[in-house]
Amino acid sequence: MAPGGTAGTEGRRNEQDAEAVASRRTMANTAVLTSQQQDFPRWYQDVLAKAELAENGPVRGTIVIRPYGYAIWERMQAEMDARIKSLGVANAYFPLFIPQAFFSKEAEHVEGFAPELAIVTQGGGKKLEEPVVVRPTSETVINSCFAKWIQSHRDLPMLLNQWANVVRWELRPRLFLRTTEFLWQEGHTAHATEEQARVFALRVLDEVYRDFMVEVMGVPVLTGRKTPKERFAGAETTWTCEGMMRDGKALQMGTSHELGQNFAKAFDITFLDDSGESSYAWQTSWGASTRLMGALVMAHGDDAGLRLPPRLAPIQVVVLAVRAEEGTAEAAQRLADELRAAHVRVEVDTRVEASFGRRVVDWELKGVPVRLEVGPRDLAKDQVVLVRRHNGTKEPLPLGQVTSTVGAVLEECQRTLSDEAMAFRTARTTAVDGVEEAVEAAADGFATLPLRALGADGEERANEAGVSVRCLVGADGGPPVPGVSEDALVAVLGRAY
Amino acid sequence: MAPGGTAGTEGRRNEQDAEAVASRRTMANTAVLTSQQQDFPRWYQDVLAKAELAENGPVRGTIVIRPYGYAIWERMQAEMDARIKSLGVANAYFPLFIPQAFFSKEAEHVEGFAPELAIVTQGGGKKLEEPVVVRPTSETVINSCFAKWIQSHRDLPMLLNQWANVVRWELRPRLFLRTTEFLWQEGHTAHATEEQARVFALRVLDEVYRDFMVEVMGVPVLTGRKTPKERFAGAETTWTCEGMMRDGKALQMGTSHELGQNFAKAFDITFLDDSGESSYAWQTSWGASTRLMGALVMAHGDDAGLRLPPRLAPIQVVVLAVRAEEGTAEAAQRLADELRAAHVRVEVDTRVEASFGRRVVDWELKGVPVRLEVGPRDLAKDQVVLVRRHNGTKEPLPLGQVTSTVGAVLEECQRTLSDEAMAFRTARTTAVDGVEEAVEAAADGFATLPLRALGADGEERANEAGVSVRCLVGADGGPPVPGVSEDALVAVLGRAY
Repeated sequence: MAPGGTAGTEGRRNEQDAEAVASRRTMANTAVLTSQQQDFPRWYQDVLAKAELAENGPVRGTIVIRPYGYAIWERMQAEMDARIKSLGVANAYFPLFIPQAFFSKEAEHVEGFAPELAIVTQGGGKKLEEPVVVRPTSETVINSCFAKWIQSHRDLPMLLNQWANVVRWELRPRLFLRTTEFLWQEGHTAHATEEQARVFALRVLDEVYRDFMVEVMGVPVLTGRKTPKERFAGAETTWTCEGMMRDGKALQMGTSHELGQNFAKAFDITFLDDSGESSYAWQTSWGASTRLMGALVMAHGDDAGLRLPPRLAPIQVVVLAVRAEEGTAEAAQRLADELRAAHVRVEVDTRVEASFGRRVVDWELKGVPVRLEVGPRDLAKDQVVLVRRHNGTKEPLPLGQVTSTVGAVLEECQRTLSDEAMAFRTARTTAVDGVEEAVEAAADGFATLPLRALGADGEERANEAGVSVRCLVGADGGPPVPGVSEDALVAVLGRAY
Repeated sequence: MAPGGTAGTEGRRNEQDAEAVASRRTMANTAVLTSQQQDFPRWYQDVLAKAELAENGPVRGTIVIRPYGYAIWERMQAEMDARIKSLGVANAYFPLFIPQAFFSKEAEHVEGFAPELAIVTQGGGKKLEEPVVVRPTSETVINSCFAKWIQSHRDLPMLLNQWANVVRWELRPRLFLRTTEFLWQEGHTAHATEEQARVFALRVLDEVYRDFMVEVMGVPVLTGRKTPKERFAGAETTWTCEGMMRDGKALQMGTSHELGQNFAKAFDITFLDDSGESSYAWQTSWGASTRLMGALVMAHGDDAGLRLPPRLAPIQVVVLAVRAEEGTAEAAQRLADELRAAHVRVEVDTRVEASFGRRVVDWELKGVPVRLEVGPRDLAKDQVVLVRRHNGTKEPLPLGQVTSTVGAVLEECQRTLSDEAMAFRTARTTAVDGVEEAVEAAADGFATLPLRALGADGEERANEAGVSVRCLVGADGGPPVPGVSEDALVAVLGRAY
């Protein structure tokens, strides 16, 4: 397997390898990206561009999700979709266009969304008699269907989800975090009782969102209840998952709403219970979007670029032929085939006409968890060099042990990213006793404050200082148990994206 | 496994089973649907409604795809997506909103699409300075990106696809076949030479579309070239897959376009070849949509409802507990678990409070390929009754043989639906020598006519009679081989959806 060579050529190879390593160091130290410390928002924009995740579309506020970014999103979709279906929810598809009149049916909903709507006034070359709204969310159109489909308690629970694009006109767009059009899933359910709706909203929060975010994205999230001020327009209760980014700011990553009977009354969704009485259904809705792509970048990335958790990485291992040399590309290819057979997602890089250092920088930008460098010197020793993206460590590895080792290294990477994010959040979370302290502590992290200490006007005072109540949690840090006294709750405050 | 019972109760069971069968016959013979013969379009609407595939949305021309319909579409997506990726194409996502000015860049394209555009003129509570178009297709916005991303021959071929919704204002909407909003995939590629673009467009036609339609949908399709009159607005050549529905009409099921350098020139997509010369790229685009759902219904359905090919059926086998009786539901459940373990998609129907006949009618409407009836009389003999949806045959099957038999029955069903569709098309295709004959033959099928006999004005004469040239094929019935004389081509004419 190792190419032969005289001592002379071997000597030259050693020099070239050394040169490659030096060149790689130079490149890695060159400011490929603005550092996080220097300018976090700029670092974020740089990473999206250089890792080829996304860029601005031609209409202001729109986004182009490039293939590498979309491949990550496809993995997020698959993971969330499986969890959604495991709750018995079926996917369906509802129209992009909604009659404008539907929005006035639920008072808070229209008030919340009116300023963000995009409206089609011309179609088929004519001015429309009734303008139509491009959906900002689908409660109205889906509930107009539920009203037809739900007749009896036997039709309940009705559990639907759709993967779709939605539009909310954005004045201050930021790629993935706030774009005029974004991709998401939105679940909509109807139940016979308030209790059943609540239990389902909390199952989605825990079994779909929290589980996906923690186990797959490797992002520890706080799950809690929103204050009335922060809840969804039209909901009775909004539950949320809040993550901390590497600048200490909070990102709302997914929400699950108890809608009570608000939409059921607005759209006349009634059912006959088993005693023949007619009742309004109790409902939930819940969504998570391409904003999660922003969370992934900002929760794990470092000054060299992305660091992708292996469970989401479209490429888990890149096998890099160090340079053109008889047998190198072939050995790289063979190694990749072996790994593929072991169900590892692999890419081979044999673009030896480009500089080794440049290619290393590219793969680091793209956050590929494991890099296997295949060079002639190593091949001569029947080994490759394994480099971990998450901490940069390099080690020689016998060729015969690659396949058996890589799986464990990927698991280690997944765990380490998750542990680091948790340690970061813990270090940046401060327990305080008063609102002013909370505002101060929220400068670069989260502040936790007993709800009773927030007081009647504490939220407003914090808001004025640019800090918001991200969520209310129980004493154990999880979502408040039903029936627990409000006095026992803790408010988590932070600066938010 | 079989429930015990005295001769007396066994006798009553026999009566009840007989009653169930009779009731089933009655229900099946009751006009659940308008017959195809009587009114095919009405039959189509009835099936979509009663099998719960889709219904109209509140804005005219829009569609709601219900969970059962969407589950079929998800399987179509997965099958096509795998074929698309196997050609080296990556998925990405481009914006829904396109600047109006982009549409005027390619003259034929704007002319073709202008009458169908939906235009947003208000956003965020204000009149927009520049109205934006809701994408009817994405050549313009994607090519504006290609112009940035393509610099060198090393960037080629660039092979992208997106799964998205598009909007074309429809004056005569029909669910799945022509809706104002529909779901589709659209592929967009750029190549260094005309030859490479042509080869790729034809690979998509054959390896993605034809293969999926024939092998998975079980619909035999003609693959051929569109006449200039029928080709895509902005293309040099359009290749198409044409299927025959059970009323003899043609349905265009997918198209693959050679765009030449038309969009490359309009959007300035150039690359430096290896000698340093700048050239415009050669491009393709290709799409298939939820229209395929209409094709599936109309190519295989019968007077009892859908007949789904097992490779697309969300439910391949329904296990039906005939009625409430100790052990019946449990036996049905056990059987379903066994089949699930063998990777069969199964649903159990133990809704014994509803009539057996009504449930049978429902599963036939939904086109589930295999029904296993589990009744106490059969269980006593350690058997179930297997019913094939595609031909209605019923046979007793020992319980121990179910799992080993079902796989073969599903394959038989897949093959039979495909064979029937092919036999139907063959029987309804007539070779003719003149245009008048072709128009006559196209009344209830396809007419094939040598292209030279179509003549200069034959297409127009046929169009006036409501008949169109569906495609041009070679003497072997496949897409014309490059370089073949036009005189050797055959025109296929039909009435189209």
